[in-house]
Amino acid sequence: MNEKRQLRLGVAGLGRAFTVMLPTLARDRRIKLVAAADPRPEARERFAAEFEARSYEDVEALCADPDVEVVYVATPHQLHAAHVKSAAAHGKHILVEKPIAISLAESTEMIEAARAAGVHLIVGHSHSFNAPILHCRKLIDSGAFGRVRMITALNYTDFLYRPRRPEELDTAKGGGALFSQAPHQVDVVRLLGGGRAKAVRAQTGAWDPTRPTEGAFSALLTFEDGVFASLTYDGYGHFDSDEFQGWVGEMGQQKKAQGPRVLQRYDDPDVEAAAKNARNYGGSGYQPASSAPPQHHQHFGLVLVSCERGELRPTPDGVMVYQQGIGRLDELPPPPVPRVEVIDELYEAVVNKRAPLHDGRWAMATLEVCLAMLRSARNGTDIALSHQTGLPRDRA
Amino acid sequence: MNEKRQLRLGVAGLGRAFTVMLPTLARDRRIKLVAAADPRPEARERFAAEFEARSYEDVEALCADPDVEVVYVATPHQLHAAHVKSAAAHGKHILVEKPIAISLAESTEMIEAARAAGVHLIVGHSHSFNAPILHCRKLIDSGAFGRVRMITALNYTDFLYRPRRPEELDTAKGGGALFSQAPHQVDVVRLLGGGRAKAVRAQTGAWDPTRPTEGAFSALLTFEDGVFASLTYDGYGHFDSDEFQGWVGEMGQQKKAQGPRVLQRYDDPDVEAAAKNARNYGGSGYQPASSAPPQHHQHFGLVLVSCERGELRPTPDGVMVYQQGIGRLDELPPPPVPRVEVIDELYEAVVNKRAPLHDGRWAMATLEVCLAMLRSARNGTDIALSHQTGLPRDRA
Ligand SMILES: NC(=O)c1ccc[n+]([C@@H]2O[C@H](COP(=O)([O-])OP(=O)(O)OC[C@H]3O[C@@H](n4cnc5c(N)ncnc54)[C@H](O)[C@@H]3O)[C@@H](O)[C@H]2O)c1
Ligand SMILES: NC(=O)c1ccc[n+]([C@@H]2O[C@H](COP(=O)([O-])OP(=O)(O)OC[C@H]3O[C@@H](n4cnc5c(N)ncnc54)[C@H](O)[C@@H]3O)[C@@H](O)[C@H]2O)c1
Repeated sequence: MNEKRQLRLGVAGLGRAFTVMLPTLARDRRIKLVAAADPRPEARERFAAEFEARSYEDVEALCADPDVEVVYVATPHQLHAAHVKSAAAHGKHILVEKPIAISLAESTEMIEAARAAGVHLIVGHSHSFNAPILHCRKLIDSGAFGRVRMITALNYTDFLYRPRRPEELDTAKGGGALFSQAPHQVDVVRLLGGGRAKAVRAQTGAWDPTRPTEGAFSALLTFEDGVFASLTYDGYGHFDSDEFQGWVGEMGQQKKAQGPRVLQRYDDPDVEAAAKNARNYGGSGYQPASSAPPQHHQHFGLVLVSCERGELRPTPDGVMVYQQGIGRLDELPPPPVPRVEVIDELYEAVVNKRAPLHDGRWAMATLEVCLAMLRSARNGTDIALSHQTGLPRDRA
Repeated sequence: MNEKRQLRLGVAGLGRAFTVMLPTLARDRRIKLVAAADPRPEARERFAAEFEARSYEDVEALCADPDVEVVYVATPHQLHAAHVKSAAAHGKHILVEKPIAISLAESTEMIEAARAAGVHLIVGHSHSFNAPILHCRKLIDSGAFGRVRMITALNYTDFLYRPRRPEELDTAKGGGALFSQAPHQVDVVRLLGGGRAKAVRAQTGAWDPTRPTEGAFSALLTFEDGVFASLTYDGYGHFDSDEFQGWVGEMGQQKKAQGPRVLQRYDDPDVEAAAKNARNYGGSGYQPASSAPPQHHQHFGLVLVSCERGELRPTPDGVMVYQQGIGRLDELPPPPVPRVEVIDELYEAVVNKRAPLHDGRWAMATLEVCLAMLRSARNGTDIALSHQTGLPRDRA
């Protein structure tokens, strides 16, 4: 790998996603932050000063910047399609946040725009990039444990009570756990199950009338080869399933134990959106992430993979391998920078022409499952899937 | 409660179920063991000697014994119907092991026989009798946590590799996890969800061709009022979910941690059945259960109940109550004898005329779900349920 070559990256949207991705972008030597776009002047000012870089009020201008090679689209879901198409039109490679978009039609347009422009479209970070998940996939591929038969994934968080923009609480506009959280869990389960899901049956829960979007779901996902998976998510903030991860949080941080959560109630959506922005990059309450190297890998809750000859369980420290009641940790040292795997995949694609796993088709297949979960819950039936795709080696 | 009145109990089938129920029957002062029936002479001899009681070769003779008031039917599933009808015909109250039977038609006949004879029919032990489950139900009924919204249950054991009779490995004859293990999990989830399930979608796994019955399943169960539940079970012996129960085993015993499991392979079904019998009451390898009082409650794996205003989690030591990230244990001291709750319900019904929860209709509803899970996995669709019943207070 030619580590000397730096990718010149422009950021569209300096919000929460950028804030959590910043340690990666700032510390991975394969990336140079050269520009950003955001309507919030405080974010632009901070970015320009911190990175001695250019900043723009709108994404179109960022995409037109000839010095930008890759655009990281971290704007709200509903803007992903327009911003990705703009980047593609300017011949830039693209890293776009999950979910790829809020409809399959948009996804198709985005994939087509990238294809026509001959640029890479990579979708993430999702927690299926995490090294323990990728390593678990390698253990499966080794054949040592026989075929995958069943997958169980569960995660209990306080998702619904973090400050939100109004559209994040409106399912019709891409709000709720099915658009923001399910993509992580579905990505993880599809990656471990081989990618080609066949149908899904799900129930969803929207239990708080003051935040009238889905905060919970449970789904039974079936794959083409008889593998099945159970996915359960609850974002209502009472129970914290990090207990099953040795009290390591989603970001890989060690916690003491379950602690009190303020399930904040906001009366005014504008006040709430402002509260979100205040915590974002450049905002008055912004706290830069620690620059200490991570102690653990990131994760998205409990994952158990039942194989014919053993059970595999990605954890924040590697993969637990259980056979006949004996467990051993296949240890993975913490990554040098968090989410380094995203840069690995982006860099390999752009610099070394290696087909990425998390491309547009992969992410569209994940979105299809999330949308089908919503529909299954409404209809009370299985929803057949028709846009699924396998791992790169299995693709046509 | 009139504790002086002892129920004179006759046991049909001195096998594994009796072996695990024996500490309860021997030590609860409300029970007197007066007779038993089993074709195995070594079991009859030991029983007669240990309890100075009568023993019979067949169940019909046991039921005809005028001194017997209650018959505990602990024979193989496929014999439950005949043995319950025989007991009813002789006017005896009945405690029958789970599952009530292997078909709904049999269940109906059993319920009808008990009704016609004016005797109680109670089905158990199932793990929904456990005090933490019953206490969790009381906490729900208190209204303090709002309505139940979602339930998650999961259990990973070595079920499939314990020694078995041939029919226990043949689904058509009532073998496998759907008949022997799902009744526990479904009973627990129905009790916490209110009983009246509406439909189920499930996938099942029969992954070991040398033991060609189901050892695993995952199901999405929906209830009439929008509550939904995820049930996952894996009996293939690699991972042990007692890790999530503080390393307390199903029987309430403290374990050190996950330990090696011998996933025993038998070439000859007769040798295997003999190995099972050898460990049973009167057999050469029989080890009486410890007479020390239990340290913890019994359990059937992880159970999480998402309510509107908190999360409830029955554990081997009580019920964990989580609200906004703070967990506290609502402690329940270990029971004086294991499975005392079964005797509570039996005694209350027979002596104090209090309608039992785990009656024939309740158990038939649980069996209906288990059978529907098998069918759903075959058909790939939801199976509607039509024999469901609520908690006693909600019944017509
Ligand atoms: N992978 C992860 O861990 C992760 C975490 C958070 C969010 N996300 C994803 O990132 C995306 C953004 O979510 P968020 O929580 O960061 O939202 P946010 O509201 O915190 O941030 C959005 C940012 O985009 C800016 N913006 C709005 N309109 C814009 C426009 N037209 N042009 C340029 N910038 C614009 C806003 O000012 C804000 O700074 C979503 O798709 C979300 O799913 C991913
Ligand atoms: N609740 C629990 O924890 C639990 C545990 C184990 C078994 N069970 C249930 O108990 C029942 C029996 O299963 P098991 O594992 O104990 O089986 P088992 O084979 O260990 O025991 C069956 C016993 O019944 C005897 N028997 C066979 N035919 C008989 C007949 N015609 N008349 C009288 N006795 C006869 C056998 O000799 C044996 O002693 C099953 O329905 C099972 O689901 C429940």
